[in-house]
Amino acid sequence: MVRRVNGERSVKPDNDDRSPRVTVKEVAERAGVHPSTVSRALSAGTNRVTADLVARVLAAAEELSYRPNRLARALRVSQSSSVGMLIPDILNPAYPPIVRGAEDALRPAGLSVLLASTDNDVRREREFITLMLDQRVDGLLLATATRKFGPLEDLLRARVPVVLANRGIGNNPLPLVTGDDILGIELAVRHLRSLGHQHIAHLAGTEKVSSGYDRKRAFIRTMKATGAPAKPEAIVSADDFTGPVGITLGESLAQELLRRRVSFTAVVAANDLLAIGCYDVLKRRGLTIPRDVSIIGYNDIALVDRVSPPLTTIHNPLYEIGFTAGEILLNAIKRNGNPSPKQVLAPTLVVRQSTAPPKNPAAFPRSHRNAVPAS
Amino acid sequence: MVRRVNGERSVKPDNDDRSPRVTVKEVAERAGVHPSTVSRALSAGTNRVTADLVARVLAAAEELSYRPNRLARALRVSQSSSVGMLIPDILNPAYPPIVRGAEDALRPAGLSVLLASTDNDVRREREFITLMLDQRVDGLLLATATRKFGPLEDLLRARVPVVLANRGIGNNPLPLVTGDDILGIELAVRHLRSLGHQHIAHLAGTEKVSSGYDRKRAFIRTMKATGAPAKPEAIVSADDFTGPVGITLGESLAQELLRRRVSFTAVVAANDLLAIGCYDVLKRRGLTIPRDVSIIGYNDIALVDRVSPPLTTIHNPLYEIGFTAGEILLNAIKRNGNPSPKQVLAPTLVVRQSTAPPKNPAAFPRSHRNAVPAS
Repeated sequence: MVRRVNGERSVKPDNDDRSPRVTVKEVAERAGVHPSTVSRALSAGTNRVTADLVARVLAAAEELSYRPNRLARALRVSQSSSVGMLIPDILNPAYPPIVRGAEDALRPAGLSVLLASTDNDVRREREFITLMLDQRVDGLLLATATRKFGPLEDLLRARVPVVLANRGIGNNPLPLVTGDDILGIELAVRHLRSLGHQHIAHLAGTEKVSSGYDRKRAFIRTMKATGAPAKPEAIVSADDFTGPVGITLGESLAQELLRRRVSFTAVVAANDLLAIGCYDVLKRRGLTIPRDVSIIGYNDIALVDRVSPPLTTIHNPLYEIGFTAGEILLNAIKRNGNPSPKQVLAPTLVVRQSTAPPKNPAAFPRSHRNAVPAS
Repeated sequence: MVRRVNGERSVKPDNDDRSPRVTVKEVAERAGVHPSTVSRALSAGTNRVTADLVARVLAAAEELSYRPNRLARALRVSQSSSVGMLIPDILNPAYPPIVRGAEDALRPAGLSVLLASTDNDVRREREFITLMLDQRVDGLLLATATRKFGPLEDLLRARVPVVLANRGIGNNPLPLVTGDDILGIELAVRHLRSLGHQHIAHLAGTEKVSSGYDRKRAFIRTMKATGAPAKPEAIVSADDFTGPVGITLGESLAQELLRRRVSFTAVVAANDLLAIGCYDVLKRRGLTIPRDVSIIGYNDIALVDRVSPPLTTIHNPLYEIGFTAGEILLNAIKRNGNPSPKQVLAPTLVVRQSTAPPKNPAAFPRSHRNAVPAS
C-alpha cells in the first residue's frame, strides 16, 4: 500500500494551467512588463531584475489575486516548499502516526509539513486555512473534517491541492484517504460474536465526524447481520466535542451505560481511549476484564499493547493513511494525473487479552448483576 | 506556576525599537515616500494606499532586510499572527503536552502555533527556521535544541523573539524553560536508595541534548552522594540519534546492560519509553518487575500509569513547560519586560508499582543470576 516516492528530490510545480482566471500574461499586462519579466521577477534572487520591478510585479499579482507557488518563492530567501496540515488535537494519540506518515511521503520531495491543531473549532479551522494559504503553502492536508464541513467552500476555492485524511466530508469532490471504518467494526463485532457474545454494547464517537458515524452504523448493521440486533440503549454516543475527551469521555460513556442497566457481556469502543476509560469504570466496579466483560478498542495506538490487560483492538493503518494522503497531495502538486476521489485502507483485528468467551451470568458477583447482567 | 494571560485578546507588537539597523524612516527614504506612508502601506487593505505604493515600500523594505511583523500582515489577507514551533519527532509522546501547553498560552492572545518536526536533523532544523522566518512568524519556540546547537547563530540574528523549551543550548542568551532534570534524577535515585537498592543501573539518553546530559550527570552525582557510587559499566548511553528510538532504543540499551553482566537490582531510565523497552527485555528473560528488578522512568507520559506493572516515574511538568515558554514568548512579542534567561520547573516523584525493595539475590532463578546478580 505504501510506496516510496521514486527518487524524486524536488517539486517543480508547473503553474501555467493552474489559474484559469489569471495568467502570467495578465499579470505582465497589469505590471506593464514583458511576460518573461514576470517569470524572472517571481524567481528573483538569481536573476538580474530590479527590486522595483519585482515590487511592481508582486503588486500586480496581488491585485489580481494571482498566487502561484513561485510567487511565494519570490518572497522567500530559500527555495523551501511547504504543505499545511491540520489535526484536531495534538494530544490525541491517533494523529501523530498520520502526521509522521505524511511527513515521510512529502519530505523526500522537499516539502516540509507545517502542522496546526484546531481543537475541532470551525473558526480556528478557517483561520488556519487562511493563514496557511496566505503563507503560500503548496498544498493542504486536513485530518479535521466534519461530515458537514464549514470551511468546505474555502477549500474548493483554494488555489492549491487539498487532500483529506482519516475523516471525510459528506458529498464533495476532494480526495480522501481513510481506514475502512465499516470493515473495522465488522471485524470487531464478528470477533466478539464468534467468542459467543450475544449482548454487546457500543461506546460511540461523535456522529459529527465520519469515523464516529460510520463505526456506529457498522455496529448496528453487523449486530443485526449476525442475528443479535443491538438494543438502542446498549449504544452510548459522544454527542459533541464540547465535553470531556479521550479517556475521560470513555469513563463518562461507560458510566452512562451502567446507569442504563442494560445487559452486556462485551463492549465495542469506537476508539482505544474510550476503551481505556471503560476499563477504569468497570475495574472500579470490581469487574475483571475479560473474565466479566470483554472490551475491544479501535486504532491500535501506542502502548495499548502494554496496558493491563493488553487491549484487543482494530489496527487502523494510521501511518499508511498519512503516507498515502501525502503521496496523493504530492502528485497533485506535481500534477501527476488525477487523484482518485477516495482511498480506503483495510484495518486488521489484533487479538490481545481483553476479549474472551462470556462466562455464565450466574457467576457474576451479586452486587454487579444489576449493573452488568450477562443476558 | 501556570498563570493565564489576563484577558488579553490580541497582540499589538510595537516594532519601533525592534530593528536597530533599519528604521521606518530609512525604509521611507529608500521608497521615496513619507514615513507615515510606510505605516499605511504596511497595514494595507484598510487604508487608501495604491498597490504601486505598497509595492514600492515592500521592495524598499525587502532591500533593506526590514522585516517587522506588520510587513507580514501587509502581505496577508487576514490579521492572523503566528508562532513557529519545532519539536524533534511527532511520535515522541513527551512533546504533545509541551505543544498543547504552548498553544493554550498563545491562542487567547490571537497567536496560532505552526508546528514542525525536525527528526533531530540540523539541516531540517535550519530549513524550518528559515521557512518560518520567511513566512513572517512573530516568534519561534524551539523544543529541539542540542547542547552544541548548529543554527544558534541564525537564531541570534533572527528579528523575532526566540524561546527554548525542554532542551537547552550550552552558553547562550536565549530564554529557556525546562524541567529540573537534576532534581528529577535525584528524586528517582533517592527513592530507590530509600527502598534499599545499592546497585542501580542507568539507561541514559544521548548526551547531545541537555536533558540526557544533565540526567546522566545527576545520576552519577546522586549515586555518589548517597554512598553507592555507580560503576561505569552500569551506565548504558544512547550515543546518537541515528539508531533506534523510543521503546526499541530502551530494548537495545537493556540488552547491552545484560551483556555487560553488571550487578543491578534497579534501573533508572532517562525516559519512560526507555523504561518500557527495559520492561520488555527483562520480562523476556523471565524476570518479574519489581520483584526481581525495580524500574523507574522519566516524564510520566500518557498511559504509563496503565502499563503492566504501572510505571513509577518522575512527573516532568511538560504541559507547564510548554505553557510557560508560550507565555514568555508572548511577553517578548508584546515587549513586556525582559524575560529571565532560564526558568526551571520542579518535577515530582510518582510512585506506582514498578519499584519495590530488592529481594535477596539468592532467590534469583539460577539462569538469571549471571545476567542480573543482585550483588
